[in-house]
Amino acid sequence: MRPVDLIVKKRNGGTFSPEEIDFLVQGFSRGKIPDYQFSSLLMAIVLKGMTAAETARLTQAMISSGDVMDLSGVPGPLVDKHSTGGVGDKISLVLAPVAAACGLRVPMMSGRSLGHTGGTLDKLESIPGYRTDLSPERFRKALCDVGYGMIGQSEKVVPADRRMYALRDVTGTVESVPLITASIMSKKFAEGAEALVFDVKCGSGAFMKTPEEARALATSLVNTGHGLGRKVAAVITDMDQPLGRAVGNFLEVEESVACLRGKGPSDVVDLTCRLAGWMLVLGGKAPDAAAGEGMARAKLADGSAWKLFLKNVELQGGDVACVLHPEKGPAARIVKPVTAAHPGVVGRVDAYKVGIASIVLGAGRSRKEDVVLPGVGITLIRKQGEKVEKGDELCLVHGDEEARVDEAVKLLQTAWEVGDRTPDRTELIIQEIAQG
Amino acid sequence: MRPVDLIVKKRNGGTFSPEEIDFLVQGFSRGKIPDYQFSSLLMAIVLKGMTAAETARLTQAMISSGDVMDLSGVPGPLVDKHSTGGVGDKISLVLAPVAAACGLRVPMMSGRSLGHTGGTLDKLESIPGYRTDLSPERFRKALCDVGYGMIGQSEKVVPADRRMYALRDVTGTVESVPLITASIMSKKFAEGAEALVFDVKCGSGAFMKTPEEARALATSLVNTGHGLGRKVAAVITDMDQPLGRAVGNFLEVEESVACLRGKGPSDVVDLTCRLAGWMLVLGGKAPDAAAGEGMARAKLADGSAWKLFLKNVELQGGDVACVLHPEKGPAARIVKPVTAAHPGVVGRVDAYKVGIASIVLGAGRSRKEDVVLPGVGITLIRKQGEKVEKGDELCLVHGDEEARVDEAVKLLQTAWEVGDRTPDRTELIIQEIAQG
Repeated sequence: MRPVDLIVKKRNGGTFSPEEIDFLVQGFSRGKIPDYQFSSLLMAIVLKGMTAAETARLTQAMISSGDVMDLSGVPGPLVDKHSTGGVGDKISLVLAPVAAACGLRVPMMSGRSLGHTGGTLDKLESIPGYRTDLSPERFRKALCDVGYGMIGQSEKVVPADRRMYALRDVTGTVESVPLITASIMSKKFAEGAEALVFDVKCGSGAFMKTPEEARALATSLVNTGHGLGRKVAAVITDMDQPLGRAVGNFLEVEESVACLRGKGPSDVVDLTCRLAGWMLVLGGKAPDAAAGEGMARAKLADGSAWKLFLKNVELQGGDVACVLHPEKGPAARIVKPVTAAHPGVVGRVDAYKVGIASIVLGAGRSRKEDVVLPGVGITLIRKQGEKVEKGDELCLVHGDEEARVDEAVKLLQTAWEVGDRTPDRTELIIQEIAQG
Repeated sequence: MRPVDLIVKKRNGGTFSPEEIDFLVQGFSRGKIPDYQFSSLLMAIVLKGMTAAETARLTQAMISSGDVMDLSGVPGPLVDKHSTGGVGDKISLVLAPVAAACGLRVPMMSGRSLGHTGGTLDKLESIPGYRTDLSPERFRKALCDVGYGMIGQSEKVVPADRRMYALRDVTGTVESVPLITASIMSKKFAEGAEALVFDVKCGSGAFMKTPEEARALATSLVNTGHGLGRKVAAVITDMDQPLGRAVGNFLEVEESVACLRGKGPSDVVDLTCRLAGWMLVLGGKAPDAAAGEGMARAKLADGSAWKLFLKNVELQGGDVACVLHPEKGPAARIVKPVTAAHPGVVGRVDAYKVGIASIVLGAGRSRKEDVVLPGVGITLIRKQGEKVEKGDELCLVHGDEEARVDEAVKLLQTAWEVGDRTPDRTELIIQEIAQG
């Protein structure tokens, strides 16, 4: 087999055999196929696509490029959730203890902030002392004793994805449904999950801007899961306005705690319980998503999810006092409001602009080496459909530096659309796709 | 400007501005844009195409990447011909002196054997002593004193093309009409030609297998020439059977000499005179191709082209005795016939198979480092439409090594199709395309 012949095959619209995909992924991850050949192949894949069978094999080959977490001793069912990324998306922090309280084991491998979106690891690490670099032993202990554990991706898991993503990033080959599918799926299954629920975000604050794009990815994820013989479901959800009312690391921890204590915003609670419902369906604990959702609401209401959250923070080294009393946690030095220029009804809060403002404040990274600040962010005072008078606060900007706060305020002044009439309510759950 | 943004632009079907093309070609040829980005761009170009204006600018940017031959002192018109490559294609050897005899100056920069096709430089260098690495001064002298000179491409001419071609070869991005167009045109115009006639070969022995492919390239060459403000014409010609009856370096020199002395095969003579006719039209020496063709035939007939050929061989260091008496030139040690297995009429002689057999014998290269043997090759005894009895010789195989001869004989046994009925005659000239 010669790489150039396989590049030509894909360029001409051909379909790779399983052996050809293994050859390409192994060759690339072992440095035998040079970057300049692989990038040409990637562009051919972007423009000519891949079948569901090819995508499944690509995922499998990527998983095989590195270590796979051995969770064989942990009593199942092992079910996880993955979100494609959004603004104010703290769902994982609430969902993991809720699902664990319902009897699932949740081996959650999360990422850091990327582009305008936040990262679960950055949020968790804003709790003083909280460690996400657990040893395999400690991760197993978290799963067995608490029911869930939160870790980052180690260097040894799916090294092919790390290499491929670095190349895709600089060669214009990021935007490809099969490549995105294989990248996401390989990491999630290498962490040891048996079944997966995907939260495919859609809207200005998401990577998929239109329902069509989101649907294409959701369908690909479900079909590829089927090809791999794994249980997968995908829920397409709105990310045109931020989730909840807090954006920024510890601000989101605080809001997550509120959710777990029964005082959280309804969109975060609703989405958490719906996703938990699907996880329970895949894990065989609920007959359908509605029933699973009901079980999740009960575990939120009776405080058992909150108890597991506290146990997890303690096990992962976090300061429990800080989550019991969030006013003792990290806070920004400066808080400035953004106010309404005229009266009306909020038609839209642009999640993308809010995300960018949070990066400006230091809640995320614009370069890999940037340091994330725990206390900064944005508190949304008014959201879609809410009335404002002139001068009312639309949001509060929390920052550590005057200049960055002013830049964020400027950005946020254009993020709220205030109009004359009440807008149609945007549905939080756009579509749900399960295996046939 | 960032390379990745331009890659995405082309991937999405966009059209580059002249500045963007200059940025890309300069960046790549100066090593500022890495191979892995450029190969991804090349694949996007292969699959999304380029407009005539983009192709013209790409050609110009490639010319500007290196030296341009300064032929300002040479009295014009400077007109050249380029063939896309075939089997038995010795046209350049006959055409250059014919065109020079008609009053044109022909600065001919040629290539070496590539794939199954022969190379003009290899053919010329089979004349003992003949040098194609002329200094710029000697090349000018050849043009001024003889009317034509034959050289290879120097390292300094269009370095961007050399880099690009090496990358295209290993990244599955060779087959692209705009990229092929820019590669050919940039080299030909950098050598100092003012006008160009293209012989676009079509058929089994050509790189373009179908008339549609050949037409697409011919049209692109003519349009790009127009975009560059140069006079260009393209003639699409048959390459389904080899040209003439000799394939192999010195065997083809011998056949070229026969043509120049009035004893050559009619297909070689006809094509030479037709191409010369177009060169004379572009050079302003003839009102149309038919008139130009007539002028060329006259210069062949009166021996003036033959005289210039001898002058050129002498000026470029070749052994004149060898061309006057080709039986003194290089010859193969072994000559074996391939004979007809049954009686009938030759329907087809597959040029591709003959080309491959000539490579096996050592007339061309299968790897860059292979040494080309001057005397080896194939003499075609029977061609399309000719009757054979069982046991009649179809061709003679000239080789230096028994094993290679046997392998070539085996290949050639399948190259002749002998059937019951006389086949339709294949037209040598398929289409002629000139600027509007």
